[in-house]
Amino acid sequence: MKKKVKISSYIDKAIFDYNLIEDGDKILIGASGGKDSTALIEYFAKRSLRPNCNFSYKALFIQSDFAPPFPPNILKLFEEWNVPFEKIDVDIIGRLKDGHKMNCWWCTTQRRTELLNYALDNGFNKIALGHHMDDILETLFMNMLHKGEIAAIPPSLKYKKYPITIIRPLCYVAEEKIIEHATEEGYAGFTCTCNYQDNSFRKEARKKVELITNGDENTRRRLFNSMKNIKPEYLL
Amino acid sequence: MKKKVKISSYIDKAIFDYNLIEDGDKILIGASGGKDSTALIEYFAKRSLRPNCNFSYKALFIQSDFAPPFPPNILKLFEEWNVPFEKIDVDIIGRLKDGHKMNCWWCTTQRRTELLNYALDNGFNKIALGHHMDDILETLFMNMLHKGEIAAIPPSLKYKKYPITIIRPLCYVAEEKIIEHATEEGYAGFTCTCNYQDNSFRKEARKKVELITNGDENTRRRLFNSMKNIKPEYLL
Repeated sequence: MKKKVKISSYIDKAIFDYNLIEDGDKILIGASGGKDSTALIEYFAKRSLRPNCNFSYKALFIQSDFAPPFPPNILKLFEEWNVPFEKIDVDIIGRLKDGHKMNCWWCTTQRRTELLNYALDNGFNKIALGHHMDDILETLFMNMLHKGEIAAIPPSLKYKKYPITIIRPLCYVAEEKIIEHATEEGYAGFTCTCNYQDNSFRKEARKKVELITNGDENTRRRLFNSMKNIKPEYLL
Repeated sequence: MKKKVKISSYIDKAIFDYNLIEDGDKILIGASGGKDSTALIEYFAKRSLRPNCNFSYKALFIQSDFAPPFPPNILKLFEEWNVPFEKIDVDIIGRLKDGHKMNCWWCTTQRRTELLNYALDNGFNKIALGHHMDDILETLFMNMLHKGEIAAIPPSLKYKKYPITIIRPLCYVAEEKIIEHATEEGYAGFTCTCNYQDNSFRKEARKKVELITNGDENTRRRLFNSMKNIKPEYLL
């Protein structure tokens, strides 16, 4: 039997390739209670036990005024893993301006702003998010098909206006690898759902990536790697 | 009724955007007898009649030892259009080394070499080829899916070793626009066929582009334009 590659190996490699964790880093991780951010937090908890580990981290959950509370079983795992954790309440609907309807984009923006403000107020220099390889790939296709541009989500991006860098240590991990791992560790069940999700473009892009790769992980990884391998002299 | 955009407008724009025709150019055009190169040659014939036109061109057909001769009806059109035309015979199969089988790649390479040698021997500084928007798009997808790189076929590329530039004035033209035009002008019938075609990767890529765009020309054009619109800071 072929030995399975652990998701931690993919994360190690992404951290190495893009220098995502540096000495003295103070990293805030966005926790949603879903499988992706939980896998990310598990990795940080375990990596922080390695010798000569010189970074600190904290998981932050943004409790919105309409979404369910943080899943208690995930909280229990965080306790087992000794994860520094905090929850803050934000009235996402309450902040809507008159005449505006609640939507997915508004919620995402508000949560991202809260993460940023918390990081700035508390001396964090990085924010880690749980986007994985397939999130990045579907973003590439959304942008190519709808915006006519070759752009996705970078593994590391520094805010121009703030001393904060967004990092995505799961960028090399295929979604099924996370599901497999989360299933083994007993936290695959929970998914973020609400009544305001309207990701039709995203879902459509995901379906299209599925179509042209027949769902094959190696083909998806080749598509993904093409973003590292751009030949300007053979483009327009 | 919405006025139809002529293919010559797309070609004019590509020539302008990439400076494909410059004063004093001597341009050799690869003629296959198919709709694409015939549309290209028709454009050159008509453009050469515009006032202050300061370039010359010639169409060259490579007659291989196994393929059918140049279609007489196209030759008749060339005469009507006053196209300078020449045919040279090349023994493509005869040049195969012992133990090698004839294939599509060998034929393409030999024909390209012949065009290049003819251009060098006869003082041409550019070679124009009939690749259109959909050829370029399917090449992008072949390269992304099979080679893991973002690369296609450029509208203009100078040989490093020779004083020759390859140009592709049809790069903005969607294939159906060429078919439509060729049908109106009475030269849509002929397609290049031989017994050595094995373009399974190319055909598969074409089908995949069709799948994710639902064949829609605007969506294909957005995908195509994304090659002009690359955001390195949002890639890997």
